[in-house]
Amino acid sequence: MTYCVGMLLDEGLILMADTRTNAGVDNFSIYKKLHLLSDGEDRNIFACTAGNLSVSQTAISIVREGLPVEDPADEDGRRTLDEVPTMFRAAQLLGAAKQVATHQVAQALAGINVPVGASTLLGGRVGDAPPELYLIYDAGNFIQCKTDTPFFQIGETKYGRPILDRELKRDMPLADALKFGFLSFDAAIASNLGVARPIDIMVMPADRSRPILTRRIERRDDYFDDLSDRWAEALSKASHGIPNPPFMT
Amino acid sequence: MTYCVGMLLDEGLILMADTRTNAGVDNFSIYKKLHLLSDGEDRNIFACTAGNLSVSQTAISIVREGLPVEDPADEDGRRTLDEVPTMFRAAQLLGAAKQVATHQVAQALAGINVPVGASTLLGGRVGDAPPELYLIYDAGNFIQCKTDTPFFQIGETKYGRPILDRELKRDMPLADALKFGFLSFDAAIASNLGVARPIDIMVMPADRSRPILTRRIERRDDYFDDLSDRWAEALSKASHGIPNPPFMT
Repeated sequence: MTYCVGMLLDEGLILMADTRTNAGVDNFSIYKKLHLLSDGEDRNIFACTAGNLSVSQTAISIVREGLPVEDPADEDGRRTLDEVPTMFRAAQLLGAAKQVATHQVAQALAGINVPVGASTLLGGRVGDAPPELYLIYDAGNFIQCKTDTPFFQIGETKYGRPILDRELKRDMPLADALKFGFLSFDAAIASNLGVARPIDIMVMPADRSRPILTRRIERRDDYFDDLSDRWAEALSKASHGIPNPPFMT
Repeated sequence: MTYCVGMLLDEGLILMADTRTNAGVDNFSIYKKLHLLSDGEDRNIFACTAGNLSVSQTAISIVREGLPVEDPADEDGRRTLDEVPTMFRAAQLLGAAKQVATHQVAQALAGINVPVGASTLLGGRVGDAPPELYLIYDAGNFIQCKTDTPFFQIGETKYGRPILDRELKRDMPLADALKFGFLSFDAAIASNLGVARPIDIMVMPADRSRPILTRRIERRDDYFDDLSDRWAEALSKASHGIPNPPFMT
């Protein structure tokens, strides 16, 4: 399993991904699922992946090598994320790469009943445009994050969703949003063995004068440990403070 | 969708079930999913159902009419929950009824790709034994609730699980446990349109001198409304009170 969150806020873009992959409960490993796909003066493009790891890795390798150009006269041309003019085109390209990867893997896995689904969060900026966030589905089609719901999740989404539904606001500071992201991960980690630290994070301020932050929250991390303890204590205190049903006397 | 919780505590047994059934989001109804299956001087047997409604209803009708006895000489005999000597036998009987119901429905539904899965919480007491709680799976096999984890869930289980994992204790008073059950339903209702009030509840004290309580929490209910508001406020206050990440300054 896996858990990844992307948040698109007025102040910028946040991506968060755990690092646990597993096939059953007796075969698990640490794999980075937050990838830097293109980095240059005019662009910073990141992706988080969930689902079938071979499909995700193949899709990312394909998009890094470049896909064939549509013009058959241009024999050497490849389309890569280093040249796409917009994040929309980046989503199209990664979607196409995922279709190629799924096609390559699907036949082999159909016989042994292993699912090939792999979803991706694609976030970043190209040129002068503000950061954008896309959710690319298994089939390679995608949707863009808009203003009403400022986040996407992939992987084990349910445990960590309520806190985001309740508290995440598009106009909150990045630091606040990141904290709610950690609380969301805390819930997913508490209830699903398939989600675990380390957690990789990327924070891209909309203000280009501020640097992009990438950081790994390790298995032991004073801040996350403290957040987890405080949250457990606060939940317990809050829930015990609510009155019991009046008909149970 | 559906959400049901069963809790087996030192002080007794609690069953809770929402009442929403839906096929898609444009076809939903209120159906009672908490059923009294057998009621007598020496027994009180209840069940909550989730999954394919036609399978659940058929299984309950079959077990009410009675299954054929295993002795072929006894042509008129039927096995019903009114005669089983233990809750274990009740679980066996309902499991068998579910297998018959699934068999009847499965062929018809296979062609139109509708899932036939239906899981059941079976709780109650027979004779002098204390209350017992069983989870009967789609296939009719079942497990019994034991001391380490004092609850079972069926249906839309994930949103409402963290609060139970964190706070429900086998040795807490029934009134406290019921409150945590309501908080669990509040989470499921907030995040899944397929779970909704009214909520049916059944509280069976282990102490036989105390009466069994059955009650419906309606769409508007002062206690539940207040609980939901207090919980939202407490979560917000608690989460906002946690410090932001120190590296986000």
